[in-house]
Amino acid sequence: MSMAQPISADLVGLSTDPIDITWNEKDVQLYALAVGCKPEQELDFVYEARGPKVLPTFAVIPGLNVMGAVMGQVQFNLAMLLHGEQKITLHRPIPASGKATAVGSIAEVWDKGKAAVIGVECAVSDDEGPLFTTYATLFIRAAGGFGGERGVSAPALIIPERDPDVVVEDVTRAEQAALYRLTGDRNPIHIDPNFAKFGGFERPFLHGLCTYGFAGRAALSSLCGGDPARFVSMSGRFSDQVYMGDSIITRIWKTEPGMALMQVETQKGNVVLSQCQVEFRPE
Amino acid sequence: MSMAQPISADLVGLSTDPIDITWNEKDVQLYALAVGCKPEQELDFVYEARGPKVLPTFAVIPGLNVMGAVMGQVQFNLAMLLHGEQKITLHRPIPASGKATAVGSIAEVWDKGKAAVIGVECAVSDDEGPLFTTYATLFIRAAGGFGGERGVSAPALIIPERDPDVVVEDVTRAEQAALYRLTGDRNPIHIDPNFAKFGGFERPFLHGLCTYGFAGRAALSSLCGGDPARFVSMSGRFSDQVYMGDSIITRIWKTEPGMALMQVETQKGNVVLSQCQVEFRPE
Repeated sequence: MSMAQPISADLVGLSTDPIDITWNEKDVQLYALAVGCKPEQELDFVYEARGPKVLPTFAVIPGLNVMGAVMGQVQFNLAMLLHGEQKITLHRPIPASGKATAVGSIAEVWDKGKAAVIGVECAVSDDEGPLFTTYATLFIRAAGGFGGERGVSAPALIIPERDPDVVVEDVTRAEQAALYRLTGDRNPIHIDPNFAKFGGFERPFLHGLCTYGFAGRAALSSLCGGDPARFVSMSGRFSDQVYMGDSIITRIWKTEPGMALMQVETQKGNVVLSQCQVEFRPE
Repeated sequence: MSMAQPISADLVGLSTDPIDITWNEKDVQLYALAVGCKPEQELDFVYEARGPKVLPTFAVIPGLNVMGAVMGQVQFNLAMLLHGEQKITLHRPIPASGKATAVGSIAEVWDKGKAAVIGVECAVSDDEGPLFTTYATLFIRAAGGFGGERGVSAPALIIPERDPDVVVEDVTRAEQAALYRLTGDRNPIHIDPNFAKFGGFERPFLHGLCTYGFAGRAALSSLCGGDPARFVSMSGRFSDQVYMGDSIITRIWKTEPGMALMQVETQKGNVVLSQCQVEFRPE
């Protein structure tokens, strides 16, 4: 591992050696509970005698470790880090326990003026071949202005001007982030009031990826009949914070066979996950 | 390990070889969340930068593994098992992570007619000497009638005829038992509706030891100022089931310096943990 490098376009192409990753049933069950699974409605995901089945968004967990390995080679301030966008693509259902190899790489670095944006890819394969890939953009406040390019934004996805086809609502727990932290992301901003204030927030807030997990559950139940084998991909942009106790309201529009747009809001009406697209296998 | 033996008085004295046990910060944090800790009020117990401090009732977790090793030598039906009484005695605060040795043994076996009652002790020591001991009685329905003695009951503790000095109330989550299971006790009766019905219950109910953890948190905050070093021992008898969504209401009477009696009820008024005595170090 080389010394950490400052943020610049030179980071593009930086990659990790293949990283061994493993997970087990307990990891999968803990993740399911951390993103709001309820035993009465979603027993398959929390009970080992039912598999357990694995929520497709569990992909972000090994993905995060690899992202950590990539970002360990970059100089930045953890308190300034926000998650921008997140995509996952499942090549097949994730097994309840597994052993796989991941390769992380930096695919893009943009200079947004005040902030820097870094795109990190993670490709995971096991003995049976490619399993899933994840892609995240990291928004690092106060790290722009290094003389890089601004980048080009993809055309915005337009939410249909009709009522959503499905609305799924969950309530986050006071301990939601404390529990989600145990799945791997120990950023203190999600639990430590002083650290959150230092980062410019009134109090600790939920991990964006935890919100993503709630939204993924809504997609899985509403679009895939709860069957992970029918879930193909999900992308979205984190646009605001969810605070503990907030409701997570996922509005879903089916746009064409196998495709849906989602928008995730809290009870306050603020959009927390936007530009959210799900690809799935119709029945 | 010998073959499993049928329940009889001959089991008394049966013990395990020393068993190596280890635990880490994540185990401790997961336990704290599983017994209801809230980050805003009890950050010390869920946040590694604060230690984390360890709830005294965490002692039951290694204790349970050892109890499992003891009971693995006994023939019985898991669906018929209920926890009777539980005592823990802390010799000093439990470290956030540790490596220790435990010895489990059967201290008593009683024949209550329909049920059998087995008393299992677990003594845990680390490099610095004795750390904690746990004692549990296991109530095994439909396993009595083997011709053993009924045993003598200890004199009942009498709750004072005055209002409690402190009342602490918590609400259990729909996912409380699913989360508590991840601390080690995977008895399906706490998550599987069919298994619960097979055991004679209308639906899955909370682990008695989870209720015990809620009660221990109430004792720690109310009697020990939140300081595990002031917590000495706690004993109690499981007398009814807590169902997910129930409130756990702990009523505490200080009886003499360093001693308190507690009674734990749900919002329905049924007593779920009785004969509960706590010893602590006054300030």
